[in-house]
Amino acid sequence: MSATPASRVAVPIELGDRSYDILIGTGLLDDPKSFDGLPAAACAAIVTNPTIAPLYAARLQTALGARYARVLVIELPDGEAHKDWTSLNTVFDALLAAGCDRKTILFALGGGVVGDIAGFAAACYMRGVPFVQVPTTLLAQVDSSVGGKTAINHPLGKNMIGAFYQPLRVVADLATLDTLPVREVSAGLAEIIKYGPIADSEFLDWLGTNLDALRARDKTALAHAVRRSCEIKAWVVGQDERESGLRAILNFGHTFAHAIESGLGYGEWLHGEAVGCGMVMAADLSARMGLIDPSLVDRLVRLIERAGLPIVGPKLGVPRYLELMRLDKKTESGEIRFVLLDGPGHEVMRAAPQALVAQVIDARTA
Amino acid sequence: MSATPASRVAVPIELGDRSYDILIGTGLLDDPKSFDGLPAAACAAIVTNPTIAPLYAARLQTALGARYARVLVIELPDGEAHKDWTSLNTVFDALLAAGCDRKTILFALGGGVVGDIAGFAAACYMRGVPFVQVPTTLLAQVDSSVGGKTAINHPLGKNMIGAFYQPLRVVADLATLDTLPVREVSAGLAEIIKYGPIADSEFLDWLGTNLDALRARDKTALAHAVRRSCEIKAWVVGQDERESGLRAILNFGHTFAHAIESGLGYGEWLHGEAVGCGMVMAADLSARMGLIDPSLVDRLVRLIERAGLPIVGPKLGVPRYLELMRLDKKTESGEIRFVLLDGPGHEVMRAAPQALVAQVIDARTA
Repeated sequence: MSATPASRVAVPIELGDRSYDILIGTGLLDDPKSFDGLPAAACAAIVTNPTIAPLYAARLQTALGARYARVLVIELPDGEAHKDWTSLNTVFDALLAAGCDRKTILFALGGGVVGDIAGFAAACYMRGVPFVQVPTTLLAQVDSSVGGKTAINHPLGKNMIGAFYQPLRVVADLATLDTLPVREVSAGLAEIIKYGPIADSEFLDWLGTNLDALRARDKTALAHAVRRSCEIKAWVVGQDERESGLRAILNFGHTFAHAIESGLGYGEWLHGEAVGCGMVMAADLSARMGLIDPSLVDRLVRLIERAGLPIVGPKLGVPRYLELMRLDKKTESGEIRFVLLDGPGHEVMRAAPQALVAQVIDARTA
Repeated sequence: MSATPASRVAVPIELGDRSYDILIGTGLLDDPKSFDGLPAAACAAIVTNPTIAPLYAARLQTALGARYARVLVIELPDGEAHKDWTSLNTVFDALLAAGCDRKTILFALGGGVVGDIAGFAAACYMRGVPFVQVPTTLLAQVDSSVGGKTAINHPLGKNMIGAFYQPLRVVADLATLDTLPVREVSAGLAEIIKYGPIADSEFLDWLGTNLDALRARDKTALAHAVRRSCEIKAWVVGQDERESGLRAILNFGHTFAHAIESGLGYGEWLHGEAVGCGMVMAADLSARMGLIDPSLVDRLVRLIERAGLPIVGPKLGVPRYLELMRLDKKTESGEIRFVLLDGPGHEVMRAAPQALVAQVIDARTA
């Protein structure tokens, strides 16, 4: 993929009448063609945050000006700690105060938090208005903006209140990654690495070779990693939109990760950092259950460490980890269910013996 | 229809894989058979209010006990004024505190407010859990429990935040209407009367003959009125689940009604009372636009008055009515759109000249 303006690939997500494309390329944000074919509306609104707004909001507003007579900008406070009802209501207040009707189209400009809130706001505003994801973080481009999961947090658990609600399009402009803090590049790499062990051992090999290029934000490497990640996610979501089965594999590492985030307080660790460490713990658990060879655990741990991610979890204690993990949405009838590996590129979802879970927590936290 | 326990009819709503039945009969609430075929779950929760709970919660809990090992009862404050985020969050708090997982099934036991909140809670809890409507008011049995519209109010407008989310079943037990206050029987009759002018002039004639029997809660008359109302609503919703066109006819009288409710403060008038008066105003507007003969207006006004409903709106003033009506969800690009009659059993949706709307407000408020 070249870096000339508006060079792009389109990865389709097949969901019947809710199908859509993920556009991936460099310079997409400024190009009105990225928004061709979206529905007409009297009012468009960009939902963003104070970090992203000064960098990209005016540029997106200009590009959208070709289609929409009126483009509001709604700023939400930055960070996972603000993924709550208050921020959600900020969107509703702004839309209602501006008299935005039920044809209004929302654009989520930012990372996973903005995408989750704007998407859930779109799902609920006047019982549903269209929306477009314009992810500006690596994590959002490869994971959270794709697949229609939207949510806010509740004091008793992460992403507990939300909806499955698909965007009309995802516009992933790789140029926005140039302004991303180093720590957030690493967080995005966690979700990219995830796709290797769960679905594609060749991609896992490719990541071993190209991890340094990705950390250096080489556009060719990023384009391949984002595209391949989106292809795998599109394949999974296309088969199980509402996570009744297969889709849960995308949560590899996330059961431990949610416990870390919730136990430390949302926002202390980045989501991707918790996922990196959570994958270490889930891989270790898979090995202790005899599903994979310990060498695969070591290989994954090295890759996660090279990505600049934590590989040791916070010392919350075994009972607290278990208590927090029981709140996971995959829990059924009180039994914690884990996404585990049973070989490179293969995974299973199942419960695990509590003694082995406790061993993992002891071994992988400090 | 006889009044022996568990006598029932089933009105189907055809919505593809979201199809379901409305069960109508006497004694359904206490009969475990009313809940046959619902999905298994470790946790069921009855969402209700302090008025309904002492009458019916324990009875429903017992009937559900045959299927569900654990049946929580969650009480919300009563009334439209509490159809807000605080009540919604009460449901989430209770479910999370009790460790209810994403197979949990919710039962909305009460009127329209309980149904709207419980339905929206079901739509959002862990991104969607199943729910069943058990309406105990006439208005909920003939209108709000059927069709999957769920919502809460926002300070800037009624039902602004919500979802289209279908129940798995509606269980309308006519015996619960025996405990309904007289004023709420009238409010329910408003929505029943509505189905005549918009869709079925024979039903309008039938109502003229049977209105006194309905007010006296004659079970045979109620069974026919509830069934016919649900059949008409099922037919409309089956063709336009998400209100992109036809479904808007169900809002006959509602544009004025929402302005009345919002202008007085939610809960001052019952929703059905506002709809009764709103139908007077919408019919009058239809006549002033030359769409119907004034004699049809007079006929409707007499029927609404005989139902015990207000036929004169509060004096909020023309500018305030217009301002409030512009917030209606049917408004497009600032133009207020009304559901109007163009004959008995026929309706159209269109904008109206502001001068005529002002005349109606002047003539029909005091």
